Amino acid sequence: MGQVMSVDPRSGDAIERVAEETSDVEVDRICAAAAAGAEALAATSPTQRAEMLEAMANDLDGRREQLVALADRESALGHARLDGELSRTTGQLRLFAKVLRDGAMFEVVIDHAAGAAPDLRRMLIPLGPVAVFGASNFPFAFSAAGGDTASALAAGCPVVVKAHGAHPALDAAVMETMRRTADAHGQPDAVSIVFGRDAGRRVVEHPAISAVGFTGSESVGRLLMDLAAARERPIPVYAEMGSLNPLIVLPSAARRPGLARDLAGSVTLGAGQFCTKPGLVFLPSGEEGDDIVDALVGSLSAMDAAFLLTEGIRDSFVSHVSDVANAGADLLVAPHPAAGSAVTPGLAQITAAALRTSPRALVECFGPATLVVRYDGIPELLAALRVVPPSLTVSVFADTTAADADEKSTTASLITAAEAQSGRVILNSVPTGVAVTWAQNHAGPYPASSAGGMFTSVGATAVRRFQRPVAYQGMTDEMLPPALRDANPWHLPRRVDGVEVGV
Amino acid sequence: MGQVMSVDPRSGDAIERVAEETSDVEVDRICAAAAAGAEALAATSPTQRAEMLEAMANDLDGRREQLVALADRESALGHARLDGELSRTTGQLRLFAKVLRDGAMFEVVIDHAAGAAPDLRRMLIPLGPVAVFGASNFPFAFSAAGGDTASALAAGCPVVVKAHGAHPALDAAVMETMRRTADAHGQPDAVSIVFGRDAGRRVVEHPAISAVGFTGSESVGRLLMDLAAARERPIPVYAEMGSLNPLIVLPSAARRPGLARDLAGSVTLGAGQFCTKPGLVFLPSGEEGDDIVDALVGSLSAMDAAFLLTEGIRDSFVSHVSDVANAGADLLVAPHPAAGSAVTPGLAQITAAALRTSPRALVECFGPATLVVRYDGIPELLAALRVVPPSLTVSVFADTTAADADEKSTTASLITAAEAQSGRVILNSVPTGVAVTWAQNHAGPYPASSAGGMFTSVGATAVRRFQRPVAYQGMTDEMLPPALRDANPWHLPRRVDGVEVGV
Repeated sequence: MGQVMSVDPRSGDAIERVAEETSDVEVDRICAAAAAGAEALAATSPTQRAEMLEAMANDLDGRREQLVALADRESALGHARLDGELSRTTGQLRLFAKVLRDGAMFEVVIDHAAGAAPDLRRMLIPLGPVAVFGASNFPFAFSAAGGDTASALAAGCPVVVKAHGAHPALDAAVMETMRRTADAHGQPDAVSIVFGRDAGRRVVEHPAISAVGFTGSESVGRLLMDLAAARERPIPVYAEMGSLNPLIVLPSAARRPGLARDLAGSVTLGAGQFCTKPGLVFLPSGEEGDDIVDALVGSLSAMDAAFLLTEGIRDSFVSHVSDVANAGADLLVAPHPAAGSAVTPGLAQITAAALRTSPRALVECFGPATLVVRYDGIPELLAALRVVPPSLTVSVFADTTAADADEKSTTASLITAAEAQSGRVILNSVPTGVAVTWAQNHAGPYPASSAGGMFTSVGATAVRRFQRPVAYQGMTDEMLPPALRDANPWHLPRRVDGVEVGV
Repeated sequence: MGQVMSVDPRSGDAIERVAEETSDVEVDRICAAAAAGAEALAATSPTQRAEMLEAMANDLDGRREQLVALADRESALGHARLDGELSRTTGQLRLFAKVLRDGAMFEVVIDHAAGAAPDLRRMLIPLGPVAVFGASNFPFAFSAAGGDTASALAAGCPVVVKAHGAHPALDAAVMETMRRTADAHGQPDAVSIVFGRDAGRRVVEHPAISAVGFTGSESVGRLLMDLAAARERPIPVYAEMGSLNPLIVLPSAARRPGLARDLAGSVTLGAGQFCTKPGLVFLPSGEEGDDIVDALVGSLSAMDAAFLLTEGIRDSFVSHVSDVANAGADLLVAPHPAAGSAVTPGLAQITAAALRTSPRALVECFGPATLVVRYDGIPELLAALRVVPPSLTVSVFADTTAADADEKSTTASLITAAEAQSGRVILNSVPTGVAVTWAQNHAGPYPASSAGGMFTSVGATAVRRFQRPVAYQGMTDEMLPPALRDANPWHLPRRVDGVEVGV
């Protein structure tokens, strides 16, 4: 089998051999162990499961220095950013512990027998073992211990992580910690890891696997969707595949203080390697828009080169920016490759009219660049927006106090249009930064995400992706699962005979 | 184009020409109209939408005599059953009106700004136009005005129904009524109908369609799943594909009064054409089991022939029963074809040991027959259950008061095993009869249903199949949809800053 190496993107050097690619036999053993462990994990109470997640968070925090150093060595994202990302990741595990203790996630519904209708009690149970494919750009928060893993464990599903090629040593270290914690909580097979592309494919095709979580490119996401759909028993794939995230500046907001600075910051945050990076910035034609463009050119040209996650990502970034330029855009700031995987930012500009006839300009450039689209009046803006594929986010900048009635109504209709084309609509703020809260939604219609954009991969409701309902009919109390017993030993909120009741 | 004819299964005669198969051009026009009407339907308040559903129920009830007569002419299911089924159907529309007025279905979550986290508000919005493929066996409740249509409309999605080949005249009459009602509520394109297999395929592949609801066979369900997965933008398919519905009689329940009568009734209800018909009946070996088999033989042999929905369904029923017999089962009662599409019931028997090595005996015989499986001790029962594919339901008969400790623990572990293999677990009752309530779940792991068995097609929560979340970040109150405004004009229950609050 091939060897899995850890590469330093700053130098391009292979630093250590992490593992051998996982063999077919070993993948089968791991998936079978996950399946065998599923019943024990499913049988845990919400409190037990919450305690395990909290212990995982504490144990990862306990190895913070070592993990952040390893993550920086493999991603070059810098200590400060990675330290913050680990906090976000352990915070995520703790949020799902809260979601478990809250108990609404079990969606308990009890209908007592009435007339011809029998006693029926419904709850959500775990779907079964879940395969998780992490992202290059968030080595903690969307990787081995990230939101997919945390929400699957909260749902009660064992997780098989496929180590990411860009940070295999980190994934191995994270999973070693998680696995030790799981073991200490009596769930030795709740988490496991496989290495190598073939192993990843075999996991997705394995009969014991019930769902897939993925964060990454549209091409790989679609590949996993197609694999899962072609199985003898198809399974759901939750793929978050990134997007163009149109950001629209209306005339009333063009003079907003700090706008160009915020835009430049959002485009280059994490070296532009965010799924929510604004990849299309709609600015009005004329002097006000020109001033923003000038300020963007000034600040992006002045920036130092930043390391991308791998040399391959850097090369495809440079080639995608050049594809956009060749599709009818003017290259205002050309990105320049530097040492290792580093590159300087890029900026291109196109008219709204030209964008409509240049679908090839609608390429996601994963890295520090954006395409400014200049529109001449609202009808032209709306027409251009119609050719943009669905995204995770749409941002609208408008001065809703100063705007005239026409622009107010434009803002309202842009927000309605944005709902249909995204999963998060933002007023007067950049889309980067995805708060991990109860209300968050990180999804969008295809190709932003799979499964009809019906489920978020960030925030409390992400857990619903890994659950399915079961109804119990005519049971005696002792034969019911604890969640559905009359005494409500898990203190869950319930809907009883059609009415929501608290705990 | 081909002609769509209405056939009487009692005689096999074509009675009238219902329509021409819908042309490609017309399908495109219908789907585009549904898409164009989607925004107006989505913008209705829960009350407006509930009123439209209630009016549809009233208008269908108003044409009851005519519709039931038409349904009987096309299905031969009899006036009493169809009259009851229409009541179930209009009751279903009224339940979804209640679900709308309750408001929890919008899943409103509000996080006020806190620290670095912005104000974020989430709700579920309609997915977009839905294609509905009804079933032969429930011409009302799982067809044009059935649960898929009712829940999609409740979610705020326009519906395009593909008329069923076994009852096209009824579907046309039902949709004419629904469309008139929708029109009167300002939603002329909320419901429409297409005829013919090619038209159905084109609807599933049409870019304006966002999801598919289907009730029918595994082969057609899988065909639609594969079509939808291969689209440029894949969409979810909710296919309820029927199943074997294992029913297990433990030794303590073998002398249960009326058991054989209840079993025979459940197997032959609606001429055995229920997705929840018990297709595998596990009985203990020995005298007690023999007595049940003798009683089943007696009552099934004494029954008159009943009409199946079409001659094609009758022919495949007879051939499936013979496949089971050829796969190692003993045919105790052979089904006999009669006039038109009629047939007498069938009964076969196999040992649990033989079933384990005869997967070809695990065929769904859609019609009035079942396969008795005789087991010799609990280990043999459990081993045989392991070869049975997942189902909509699993029923367990046990006398939980009289049973000894061993059998009690067997019952408990059978129930746990049944959870993993079905969507509804039933104690001491037959699986036919699916109450339309808040807690109902009519789904199961593939091949019982698609989408991981994550969504019911019956009961209040069916609406979640046709919704997706959107989060609104940093909005002013007037720019928010009404559901998320501070004043809560729609009186929806909400989770605010992590805590559920009533209305």
